[in-house]
Amino acid sequence: MDFANKIRLIKDFPKPGVNFRDITTLLQDGQAFKAAVDAMTQACADMEIDLIACPEARGFVLGAPLAYNMGKGLVLFRKPGKLPGKTIKHSYQLEYGMDSLEMHEGAILPGQKVLLVDDVLATGGTVAAGVELIKQSGGQVAGVAFLMELLGLGGREKLRDHRVISLIKCDA
Amino acid sequence: MDFANKIRLIKDFPKPGVNFRDITTLLQDGQAFKAAVDAMTQACADMEIDLIACPEARGFVLGAPLAYNMGKGLVLFRKPGKLPGKTIKHSYQLEYGMDSLEMHEGAILPGQKVLLVDDVLATGGTVAAGVELIKQSGGQVAGVAFLMELLGLGGREKLRDHRVISLIKCDA
Repeated sequence: MDFANKIRLIKDFPKPGVNFRDITTLLQDGQAFKAAVDAMTQACADMEIDLIACPEARGFVLGAPLAYNMGKGLVLFRKPGKLPGKTIKHSYQLEYGMDSLEMHEGAILPGQKVLLVDDVLATGGTVAAGVELIKQSGGQVAGVAFLMELLGLGGREKLRDHRVISLIKCDA
Repeated sequence: MDFANKIRLIKDFPKPGVNFRDITTLLQDGQAFKAAVDAMTQACADMEIDLIACPEARGFVLGAPLAYNMGKGLVLFRKPGKLPGKTIKHSYQLEYGMDSLEMHEGAILPGQKVLLVDDVLATGGTVAAGVELIKQSGGQVAGVAFLMELLGLGGREKLRDHRVISLIKCDA
C-alpha cells in the first residue's frame, strides 16, 4: 500500500512557513490504518520485545494497536501531572524552553526490552527523552518504531545507538 | 479474566479525597490488555459501525486497537489547537470552567455510524461533547464503549439516548 499517499500536507501549521504532514487522513482510512499497524508489526518481528512504550498523545495511536497486535504490555509516557502514581521524569530541550516526559515508577523493570513507538520522527526530542526514561528504569531499548520519518531534521542521528524503523519516509 | 483486579486504586488523585482508579496497570499487562480489547470488540460485534472516534488522550489507547481490530478508520477528538486542519468544535462545562473538543471537518461524513470509545465513563462530560461532534457532522452514534464505568456519577444517564457498553463496572 502507498502509505505516503494517505498523508495530507497542511501549510503553515503550527506556524507560518511550516508544512505539517497530517497523519489523521491515514488513520481515518480503516484499511490503511490496519495495513500500517501490520507493516510496523512486521518490521519489528525479529526484535526481542517485552513491552511497548509510547509518548502522549499521538504515540498512543500507534503504540496501543502494536501492543495489542504483539500481545505485549503498554507503558504510557505522559506530560507532567497526568499520571496518578509515583513517577520518574526526564526533561528535554524544545526549540523554545523545556518540556518533560513522565512514566510510572516500576512500569518498566530492570532488564526488560522495550520497543518505543511514536507517530512521527522529526528532530527526535520527545523520543530521545523516552529513551532516557527507559534507561533510568534499567530497561533496554529494543528498538524505536515510527509511522513516518521526516528526513533532514536529525532525528535518526539522535537515535543512532538504536535500531530505528519507519514506515513512511519523506522530506521535511 | 478478572479485569477489575488489574486496576489500581490511587488515593487523593487528582485532589485530596478522590480515589483514582488507574488503568495503566491493566495496560501494562499484555495478556490483560489484549483480552480487554478483544472483549470490548466482542461487546460491540452486533453494532453497525463505519468509524471509531475517541477523545484525547487515554481514549486513543482503547480506540486505536479497537479500530485496528475491527478494520475501521479512527477519528481523533482533540483538545483545541492540536489538529492541523480546519476543525469543528464543541465546548462543555467542567466542574470549574469550560473545556472544548475538536475534530477535523469532514472526518465524519453525514450518515456514517460512529462508535465512540473512551477509557473511563465518570460524569460523561467529555464523551457527551464527543456525541455532539458526531451529531454536528451529521453522523450517527452507533454506540459508546468504555473499558471502565464508575457507577453513581451520572455518566450513563447523560448517554441515555445511546447504547453504552463498559467492560468493568465499579463504585466511584
